[in-house]
Amino acid sequence: MKRTLTGKAEKRLNSFYLLICTLPLLWLSGCKPQARDRSLPPALRPELLQKFESIKDLGLRQEKAYEFLKQITSIGGRLTGSPEADRAVELTASLMAEQGFDRVWTEPVKVQRWVRGQAEEAMVRSSKLGTQALSICALGNSLGTPVNGVEAGVVEVRSFEELSALKDIVPGRIVFYNVPMDRTVVEPFAAYGRAAQFRVRGASEAARYGARAVLIRSMTFRVDQNPHTGLMEYDDRAPRIPAAAVSTAGAELLHHWLQTDPELKVWLRTNCRQEEPVTSANVIGQLTGSEFPDEIILIGGHLDSWDLGPGAHDDAAGCAVAIEVLRLIKETGLKPKRTIRAVMFMDEEFGGTGGRAYAASDHRKQEKHLVAIEQDRGGAAPVGLAFSLESLADRLKPLLAYLGPLGINWIRTGGGGVDIAPLREKGTILGGLIPESQRYFDYHHSALDVPEAVHPRELELQAVILAMVIYFLAEQGV
Amino acid sequence: MKRTLTGKAEKRLNSFYLLICTLPLLWLSGCKPQARDRSLPPALRPELLQKFESIKDLGLRQEKAYEFLKQITSIGGRLTGSPEADRAVELTASLMAEQGFDRVWTEPVKVQRWVRGQAEEAMVRSSKLGTQALSICALGNSLGTPVNGVEAGVVEVRSFEELSALKDIVPGRIVFYNVPMDRTVVEPFAAYGRAAQFRVRGASEAARYGARAVLIRSMTFRVDQNPHTGLMEYDDRAPRIPAAAVSTAGAELLHHWLQTDPELKVWLRTNCRQEEPVTSANVIGQLTGSEFPDEIILIGGHLDSWDLGPGAHDDAAGCAVAIEVLRLIKETGLKPKRTIRAVMFMDEEFGGTGGRAYAASDHRKQEKHLVAIEQDRGGAAPVGLAFSLESLADRLKPLLAYLGPLGINWIRTGGGGVDIAPLREKGTILGGLIPESQRYFDYHHSALDVPEAVHPRELELQAVILAMVIYFLAEQGV
Repeated sequence: MKRTLTGKAEKRLNSFYLLICTLPLLWLSGCKPQARDRSLPPALRPELLQKFESIKDLGLRQEKAYEFLKQITSIGGRLTGSPEADRAVELTASLMAEQGFDRVWTEPVKVQRWVRGQAEEAMVRSSKLGTQALSICALGNSLGTPVNGVEAGVVEVRSFEELSALKDIVPGRIVFYNVPMDRTVVEPFAAYGRAAQFRVRGASEAARYGARAVLIRSMTFRVDQNPHTGLMEYDDRAPRIPAAAVSTAGAELLHHWLQTDPELKVWLRTNCRQEEPVTSANVIGQLTGSEFPDEIILIGGHLDSWDLGPGAHDDAAGCAVAIEVLRLIKETGLKPKRTIRAVMFMDEEFGGTGGRAYAASDHRKQEKHLVAIEQDRGGAAPVGLAFSLESLADRLKPLLAYLGPLGINWIRTGGGGVDIAPLREKGTILGGLIPESQRYFDYHHSALDVPEAVHPRELELQAVILAMVIYFLAEQGV
Repeated sequence: MKRTLTGKAEKRLNSFYLLICTLPLLWLSGCKPQARDRSLPPALRPELLQKFESIKDLGLRQEKAYEFLKQITSIGGRLTGSPEADRAVELTASLMAEQGFDRVWTEPVKVQRWVRGQAEEAMVRSSKLGTQALSICALGNSLGTPVNGVEAGVVEVRSFEELSALKDIVPGRIVFYNVPMDRTVVEPFAAYGRAAQFRVRGASEAARYGARAVLIRSMTFRVDQNPHTGLMEYDDRAPRIPAAAVSTAGAELLHHWLQTDPELKVWLRTNCRQEEPVTSANVIGQLTGSEFPDEIILIGGHLDSWDLGPGAHDDAAGCAVAIEVLRLIKETGLKPKRTIRAVMFMDEEFGGTGGRAYAASDHRKQEKHLVAIEQDRGGAAPVGLAFSLESLADRLKPLLAYLGPLGINWIRTGGGGVDIAPLREKGTILGGLIPESQRYFDYHHSALDVPEAVHPRELELQAVILAMVIYFLAEQGV
């Protein structure tokens, strides 16, 4: 039709389509949208908006992202190097092949194999208050206690400064880092970032002063009996001592008992160990670009998870969304000019070896990754987008006129992810969709991170929006 | 300090405070905020930002809104005119008195008393497929079936047009409105609005053609066994027939059985009835303005709920937030110039008699309501604000520089609520905070609307933000 119309008539027709396409959105939003008076840029021509509508309708009608998530979580926890992680490699490769993507393959990654062993146990014993079980879990990377466990007095601290001040009483004791996530910090990831340093560095800092083990308060705003695991690291200049997380309810109990009986003892036994490294894999699927097949827009998540639960938000959600983005683009009949690639990275949790292997692979030599997106902030409702290049963020802003009613109200500079970070030095723009996150740390790294904690429509909205943005990028380039 | 400084020095000092106050926010947001280059207007002077910080810290540390919500929901369902609604009146009056608000009182409201009676029952009976129970509930306002129930063949329709086309086979049958909420509509309230007409008007439309009863597919995106109730209305020009909602899983089953056996029968028994009207009450508490006590900023929710669950999102959340807004302002030591009033309206669900009684009361004659806010869209994370007066919405926009990191990314024209609507003709500006709503209809009007479905921090963020906005309005006027 385009060819048979003069410029003016085409413009009128475009305005008409635009009205038709935009009206329902104005109505849907319930209120007048922010951008109502801003004329849409040429990039948002009616043909594109119709494609966006098709993606939205297909996605919201089928909610397939949640189906993918349920299949991945049905494996259970997918600890790096574990048989469950291997099964997740097979499963997601099959899933992507079933969707008929143009290519599906795996690339090997050498990963460490940390094993939790038998369930951990801990008790607090007080001559004044009695005996009480504490709910704990070993931290990833930690060595285990001796087979009979460790029993010792406890030094409670709320900072490294306090630890240093109390260093004279640390030798032979268990250091208990009781540092809650700061509730007055609105953004949970920021509160987490501040608290997580004790989990990561706490063992070596305490071992330097002669501690026998460390207990870390779990990183969650909620007070419950679920310990939250996560990575810890040893500093080679300090002795290696066992490190475990205690549930927030256990931390509260221990804190209160210590007020009455500073001489109480904690006994804990953990059974974790390092085994020999194994070969695992990143799983990759793509829709090959029709004009620029070597120019790539990447969308990824990480396939490994912690082992206390099936890692639904962290990060089956990101993997499911990546697969669904490609499926939505394919099923809508779109043929992007540039390649759109889904990558399920292996081993984010133990340090991102999968991301580094991906970036360093010889396969990358022929390829140019224009944009890489990693979804690893949970599967909740979308609130914004972030891209590491300000000019790209600005260029995408006209999309807000369409994306606003879908929940995306800002596009900022920022964004990134452990697994895509190594691509940055190759000139790749990093980015991602930012979801609502107030509930995220309720589940994070714990037994509570189950599919029931993810909402099918919220997850699908992530995929729908990312499919639109990624298709747009694959058509327009950067 | 203000008096001892020259204008210029004061300005420098203000800029310094501004930097101190704003920096953590920039950091918290994780990305550069949208408004980073926009200089803050005089309204956002550092003293105000410090008050906002105090409100935020107090709210997020204590999460009292959720405590109020739990107390209200512990009563159970609070059907208009029921003893439970009476208890809710007493409870919230006590709660507000305990907070030390300047005045707490009730105002009478005459309300209808609809009684559900014994639990409803329904069966589908097919000579080909067997017998299966259907999960149903009577709709509010409906009359009950005869004591032995109604058994009849079924006419399934998806629109009033289809009903009209099938009118010849309607006499003597049960009309089954199987109209799902449209999943492709992003905004759940919009999808609900379209589907709810069958619940509200369906009985009379079907009765006109001789139907004996109607079954309405529950209004939720989820497919489960929970029927969702809600208000229905009779048209005086049509016979009155019983109306019930069937769970979405029940609706799917009935639909599939009808494909195989169009002659199947449904039997249903409902035991609801209207009793004599009773006197109930709106519950009101306030912080009296120090300069303009008769100028009022109102924040309300509705105290009644449906009876299948304890009405946590709908609308214990709104009541809890209203109480918490006043508590936060009081506990932070703020003394607003204008009166800030919390109103728990009675009888929103059966048509808003409480809201009308409030607006019509003689007490209102001395008062000028500048702004009225009703929170009745659930207790989830805040996403925006809406006010019925565009100039006010525009005037509040500078607050976005502060509210953005708290989740509020837009302020639009719009807003309102059943109970505050009668104030509009008196010149009151209506408004509200818009929460994320993808999960709302999973719970709405069903047994699933329990406190566990509300997140303490998300609810508190509503109260924190509204406390800031309402305090700002009470200081500045409109």
